Amino acid sequence: MSKRIGILTGGGDCPGLNAVIRGVVKSAVGRGWKVVGIEDGFDGFLHPEKCRCLGLEEVRGILPLGGTILGTSNRGNPFAFPMVREGKVELVDVSDEVCSRIKHLGLSALVVVGGDGSLKIAQELMRRGVPIVGVPKTIDNDLLETDVTFGYNTALETATEALDKLHSTAESHHRVMVLEVMGRYAGWIALESGIAGGADVILVPEIPYDIEKVSQAILERGRRGRRFSVVVVAEGAFPKGGGRVVKEAAGGKSVVERLGGVGEAFSRELGGVLEMDIRVTVLGHLQRGGSPSTFDRCIGSRFGVKAVELIESEAFGHMVCLKGRHITSVPIEDAIRSLNLIDPGGEMVRHAEALGIMLGR
Amino acid sequence: MSKRIGILTGGGDCPGLNAVIRGVVKSAVGRGWKVVGIEDGFDGFLHPEKCRCLGLEEVRGILPLGGTILGTSNRGNPFAFPMVREGKVELVDVSDEVCSRIKHLGLSALVVVGGDGSLKIAQELMRRGVPIVGVPKTIDNDLLETDVTFGYNTALETATEALDKLHSTAESHHRVMVLEVMGRYAGWIALESGIAGGADVILVPEIPYDIEKVSQAILERGRRGRRFSVVVVAEGAFPKGGGRVVKEAAGGKSVVERLGGVGEAFSRELGGVLEMDIRVTVLGHLQRGGSPSTFDRCIGSRFGVKAVELIESEAFGHMVCLKGRHITSVPIEDAIRSLNLIDPGGEMVRHAEALGIMLGR
Amino acid sequence: MSKRIGILTGGGDCPGLNAVIRGVVKSAVGRGWKVVGIEDGFDGFLHPEKCRCLGLEEVRGILPLGGTILGTSNRGNPFAFPMVREGKVELVDVSDEVCSRIKHLGLSALVVVGGDGSLKIAQELMRRGVPIVGVPKTIDNDLLETDVTFGYNTALETATEALDKLHSTAESHHRVMVLEVMGRYAGWIALESGIAGGADVILVPEIPYDIEKVSQAILERGRRGRRFSVVVVAEGAFPKGGGRVVKEAAGGKSVVERLGGVGEAFSRELGGVLEMDIRVTVLGHLQRGGSPSTFDRCIGSRFGVKAVELIESEAFGHMVCLKGRHITSVPIEDAIRSLNLIDPGGEMVRHAEALGIMLGR
Amino acid sequence: MSKRIGILTGGGDCPGLNAVIRGVVKSAVGRGWKVVGIEDGFDGFLHPEKCRCLGLEEVRGILPLGGTILGTSNRGNPFAFPMVREGKVELVDVSDEVCSRIKHLGLSALVVVGGDGSLKIAQELMRRGVPIVGVPKTIDNDLLETDVTFGYNTALETATEALDKLHSTAESHHRVMVLEVMGRYAGWIALESGIAGGADVILVPEIPYDIEKVSQAILERGRRGRRFSVVVVAEGAFPKGGGRVVKEAAGGKSVVERLGGVGEAFSRELGGVLEMDIRVTVLGHLQRGGSPSTFDRCIGSRFGVKAVELIESEAFGHMVCLKGRHITSVPIEDAIRSLNLIDPGGEMVRHAEALGIMLGR
Repeated sequence: MSKRIGILTGGGDCPGLNAVIRGVVKSAVGRGWKVVGIEDGFDGFLHPEKCRCLGLEEVRGILPLGGTILGTSNRGNPFAFPMVREGKVELVDVSDEVCSRIKHLGLSALVVVGGDGSLKIAQELMRRGVPIVGVPKTIDNDLLETDVTFGYNTALETATEALDKLHSTAESHHRVMVLEVMGRYAGWIALESGIAGGADVILVPEIPYDIEKVSQAILERGRRGRRFSVVVVAEGAFPKGGGRVVKEAAGGKSVVERLGGVGEAFSRELGGVLEMDIRVTVLGHLQRGGSPSTFDRCIGSRFGVKAVELIESEAFGHMVCLKGRHITSVPIEDAIRSLNLIDPGGEMVRHAEALGIMLGR
Repeated sequence: MSKRIGILTGGGDCPGLNAVIRGVVKSAVGRGWKVVGIEDGFDGFLHPEKCRCLGLEEVRGILPLGGTILGTSNRGNPFAFPMVREGKVELVDVSDEVCSRIKHLGLSALVVVGGDGSLKIAQELMRRGVPIVGVPKTIDNDLLETDVTFGYNTALETATEALDKLHSTAESHHRVMVLEVMGRYAGWIALESGIAGGADVILVPEIPYDIEKVSQAILERGRRGRRFSVVVVAEGAFPKGGGRVVKEAAGGKSVVERLGGVGEAFSRELGGVLEMDIRVTVLGHLQRGGSPSTFDRCIGSRFGVKAVELIESEAFGHMVCLKGRHITSVPIEDAIRSLNLIDPGGEMVRHAEALGIMLGR
Repeated sequence: MSKRIGILTGGGDCPGLNAVIRGVVKSAVGRGWKVVGIEDGFDGFLHPEKCRCLGLEEVRGILPLGGTILGTSNRGNPFAFPMVREGKVELVDVSDEVCSRIKHLGLSALVVVGGDGSLKIAQELMRRGVPIVGVPKTIDNDLLETDVTFGYNTALETATEALDKLHSTAESHHRVMVLEVMGRYAGWIALESGIAGGADVILVPEIPYDIEKVSQAILERGRRGRRFSVVVVAEGAFPKGGGRVVKEAAGGKSVVERLGGVGEAFSRELGGVLEMDIRVTVLGHLQRGGSPSTFDRCIGSRFGVKAVELIESEAFGHMVCLKGRHITSVPIEDAIRSLNLIDPGGEMVRHAEALGIMLGR
Repeated sequence: MSKRIGILTGGGDCPGLNAVIRGVVKSAVGRGWKVVGIEDGFDGFLHPEKCRCLGLEEVRGILPLGGTILGTSNRGNPFAFPMVREGKVELVDVSDEVCSRIKHLGLSALVVVGGDGSLKIAQELMRRGVPIVGVPKTIDNDLLETDVTFGYNTALETATEALDKLHSTAESHHRVMVLEVMGRYAGWIALESGIAGGADVILVPEIPYDIEKVSQAILERGRRGRRFSVVVVAEGAFPKGGGRVVKEAAGGKSVVERLGGVGEAFSRELGGVLEMDIRVTVLGHLQRGGSPSTFDRCIGSRFGVKAVELIESEAFGHMVCLKGRHITSVPIEDAIRSLNLIDPGGEMVRHAEALGIMLGR
């Protein structure tokens, strides 16, 4: 039976989003369905002109492109939508309007491609009767119940390439080069790019660092004839006893609140205990951009196909996910109950330390 | 207790081998062990000058390098070693010499990094009393019991980048561009790079192709206004009823024998039924080279660390492997009992077809 | 005064063509002119549906794309156009039709982006009264009167990257790796990528090679402990006294006729005099594809702008060109009177030899 | 006649330095000369252990590596050398020691690879009787008398790749993305990478910007349906009437003094007049790192060869340079008399504006 389904991308952009959109459109059109693209995340439901048909022509040539042809937004929570009233911005519940708009568009299902935040909104809309399937998106790899998502691999490549570049300049100038990468709560990008990029020190939010020990490790390298060091710092890293403000995560789990300029702060601290040239580079938005890697294009495309299969089998409330080499699905609520953090006593940390990497402790 | 362990790399080279070697050396040296590198695969045991100590200095800076600093060889089977006797090459069993050499070197364990072939040799040497742990290496991803191995991801990137390049020239000239990639028995590189590179047709050894149907698919694209097509052909692909010679694989499973120039042969066949400009590119050795991708550097490094952990726990006869996000181990014999082939009725093929890709059937 | 100008791309495609098209459109539209894109080279004039308006929207996002959005053709010489008559292909002069079509389209000038062949056609059409400005395009860098053209730099990057990849596998397997690159008459790609990629031997059409001397050079390397070699062969390279068929070039200069499979032929020859593993890779169409390099995007864009400036100043019959850091122009006839070949006694060859590279002599 | 020559690399590191070193060593050794590498710039002359022989083995495999195997230093001016005396850092003239050390090492010539600063020091040492040839090195392309130097092309690639990445995220989020690139006095990196990366606004030190006009240009784009913009800012850019501190350059020419955080400052300014999401990325040290591009490896290698040729012909006081496709030489003093700045009324600026790029005026 022919269907009409919607798709939107929410939250920060990420390489591979277009692969997902293309995967959904190609396999839906192959079944004779229609696809409606909602622009700029949930925000698009509030603007009729932002809902447009997506056919084969619209997704042509988008597989290698970064970003999302649908646009995205970090601000479109329908349950707390920012509206200007009497000159002030208020957060208004516009979920009724969104639900009626979905009905009006005749959508028999909605594909929500997003992270923690967007999937929680999706879960709420499910409760309001909207049939939703989720596609996980997180560049930080902090979502549970999926080995990884698209975008993460491309971000790792960008970070590792940056480390390769910093290595040669660190060695030529006998400097400490510090690279700040993404990872507010989960330090996966720092940890894996650090392993791949031959970092000497990796600092992640899950392991508060001891600046004295970091300094000692760098000095010890100097004694072995290595007059330079490369340090990767996740943006959420913080010193031991640092007294950072924490917030309650969905599942009641405390996570560290973001603080900007962590690379800078760490470098100043390090400069206080170590007499060496120290330079910081903040990778920032470069990690979100660029043509997706093979892995991300492949996983993204298959996630899109799987999302349509979930709709076909009416597995609403489920999210596609990767387990080993298989694309399967889990209830959205299982994926958002907490964050996928590095286990300080786990395998990957043990491997990093066996490779001689200093983890700040 | 201090140990002295050996490591060799066998078979075709592959990006990530140096990451494994470095991982073994760094974590062995960290335990106070010594490492002996055996050059040019098993062949190195027959030449005393090819066994040398590997310390931290020797593995410095090798993480981003392709190839293997130990060298490798496709010809060093100790049970059938090519020796020139009276002007003729004979295959001689030199395994006794290898075993006594290992004893002489004082190796309490040997790390064999290799594919199907090298691991079978390792298994035989195990039976002769050599304590071995395996590290799987296959650029084709045709080994069982591990999700993937290092090298495969880099090869996929190379193939996908080639597809991106062929796309623009195919479209500009309205041509059929054929890319021949590796994959003698297993078509994974063709299948995954084809999905990632937006190929229109993918031909793999596991699905004999029907040239008429391939031609029809390309013509059908023309009718929809796409005057070009991109085809990926695994080197082991063959036509339906093609009567290819097959050989018995280890587990008694029949696999297709390699035939060179598959891309060329297919293109001639296609040219016979289709009036279009057709051009072939053979990716060949480019797929084995280059700096390993982040994924391969990371997995390679961790495989190296894990191999040392296996030696420490005396889990001889085991091979490290990747399952989801975890590095674990399996008996070598489980991994080499057969090949990891694409299931023509499986998930990845279904996803490819849902994306509109023609698989030759 | 408002103008209406045409643009076409002819001959083999090349990274940077879209930058030229975008440059022409942006600067023409900025002057209030209209641009008509002619598809598939001169061929497009014979098909009314292949002439379409190009505005800012049409050139949006094309700067980083390889190929040409206008399509191209190797077969569209209006003075010898292949037409099927009574079942046979005849070469027919359709130049009257092309001229009248240009008049009919109201074009006050035509930008021809092409190589040797297309520029000669342009020159002929000039004589028939069509006001033309040329933009040089040659991936081989064999055009006179311009330091380089767009596309060449990207092709060099592709070739050098391939050499980097072959290096690690050559060294790991102790092999001679041969890379065949483009360069039918002029060996610039082989020479410059060989210098950049650290090749041991470079063979170009301008210097017939002595297989014995090549073999000696490789053996000599072996004596110094280098058990591998990397060889770059231009597709037009040939052995000394090889008796190759030659053809008359425009300026009466003899040049070597193309022979396919030069890498293969050379390797067989080398295999006859040298006992080593030898493997060939043919880079082929990969050299034409891909996103243009920074240099090519920049030069391409500026060539486009300059072409419009030439039209404005009515410098018809001229071709834009690069001299040092400046974009200037020369009469088309100066550029096509002969080919830009490597001088065997010149500076670049001397530099290569000083770097220890063997040039086959 | 056999010679013994020295080589050092001074100032900030730059991709291609190793190509120069390798070029010098290969062609000097080919002449039967000896080469002494001086580590860490002129600083190395003060430490006997920092002067070491460079033979073929030492330069093996360094062609594709970023940085400099000799190390470099920004602090080693022998005429004003920082020495700690009684707890304070004083600038001391140690040039006598350097000159006698050069004599002691038996160097018949010294190759100085460096920028503006190092070449001025070289010029002074010349006057003191040291026979020097220069090799220009400037990542900013701000040296006179050479079309470009090595390193610049690689830096452009890094900047353009960053722009490509920022484009997709800018478009997906409807943001203004600002990229700060190198270029304290000369804005070439900003200008050329901006042209190649399709930037909408480019701000260079040579053209003080008018924030109102920049803002208007971005709003005008919005009116044409482009809800995002990409801005490249050279680190030396400053607002019109900005009252920046200037310093006297060598030739008496005033140049703008560096101010850190230009991207940030500009963004805050822009945020004051424009209601849009604005994000800054500072490319920083990434521009100095990485494997050199083909162009830079080629030019670097040839510069090295040419430097040895200059020594052979005793053309001391000269610097190698690139003019068109030729490597030639000029007196060092001609190259350092002033800086190579963008001409606000020149060709490249005109081309950029014809491409629709806003240059802040």
